[in-house]
Amino acid sequence: MPPTNPARRRALTDAAIALLASSGVHGLTHRAVEKEADLPPGTASNYFRDRETLLVAAAERVVELHHTDTGQATDRPATLDDLLTESLFTAATTLRDRYLAIFELQLESVRRPALASALAGLGDAAVRITAGQHDKLGLTLPRETIPTLIALYGGALFTLVTAPPETVDRDVVQTLVRTILNGCASREEKT
Amino acid sequence: MPPTNPARRRALTDAAIALLASSGVHGLTHRAVEKEADLPPGTASNYFRDRETLLVAAAERVVELHHTDTGQATDRPATLDDLLTESLFTAATTLRDRYLAIFELQLESVRRPALASALAGLGDAAVRITAGQHDKLGLTLPRETIPTLIALYGGALFTLVTAPPETVDRDVVQTLVRTILNGCASREEKT
Repeated sequence: MPPTNPARRRALTDAAIALLASSGVHGLTHRAVEKEADLPPGTASNYFRDRETLLVAAAERVVELHHTDTGQATDRPATLDDLLTESLFTAATTLRDRYLAIFELQLESVRRPALASALAGLGDAAVRITAGQHDKLGLTLPRETIPTLIALYGGALFTLVTAPPETVDRDVVQTLVRTILNGCASREEKT
Repeated sequence: MPPTNPARRRALTDAAIALLASSGVHGLTHRAVEKEADLPPGTASNYFRDRETLLVAAAERVVELHHTDTGQATDRPATLDDLLTESLFTAATTLRDRYLAIFELQLESVRRPALASALAGLGDAAVRITAGQHDKLGLTLPRETIPTLIALYGGALFTLVTAPPETVDRDVVQTLVRTILNGCASREEKT
């Protein structure tokens, strides 16, 4: 019977995310994960039978963390501009390691279909959650622009987390968000 | 005296770029590069004394290739919309491997300052070249929006090269480019 201690499994996957950010995909091994989580040798193999299973588990955990935070964001009353500036700024600073981990996994997923499937939930859920936020906030942004909004938001986040941290401030982030939102809004006018 | 056969050096760095795209940063070793370039064992070590030197050489080569192509683009008469749609579509399809390699290096550069320096040229030159294109095309896009334009263009490219290739078509790319350009143009109006 495979081990089913959820707290221990979470500790291992959280360690995997930290390792992805600090050492990249190549730093993610069973041994490194156990060491990072301060657990005895062999623990990680009990939970994840091979390296791909470990990568997929890290991806599932990172998707779960992302959804928990994104879901919470809808509870705060705000304009979409404020909401996205706040979430993009937090993602690029406080949560930088998590998104570095996501991007490591996303590049690796080009070579690993199992990882691509685990990460596919990120995009689909982002569309659903953003649509929900739009309804909640009573937004007029055309619904069909949401995939473009998400592609540009995700891309901007990649640019921000790989930039020197001292160049990332709230003004830079707000300018990116406003440009994306103005672009999505003006698309409607032009067609 | 270090070897100075430029054709052989190029063959090795081109092999390094192919390996970055196919196997990621962790697949880039001296031995793998020699094998990919069909050169005898030991050749790569003659040119690149350690792994970081090899990574930096790959980054310099990929920056050089990027500039050669971007520079040529200014010779074609076009609107900025056409120019960017064409260049983004080509980057995401025909040149997908090159940009996967760039993004592998960009993530690794978070952990390697020498690599970050080698890649810094990408952003600086992009601003200069884009400004040149603007002058040539007589564009009215506010000059101060160029860094935002480049951040969003680069981010969109990351989203495109890591997406399933069958989802990337000219319409998707044009929508992204128009949204970015409309966003940059409308920024001026709002301030």
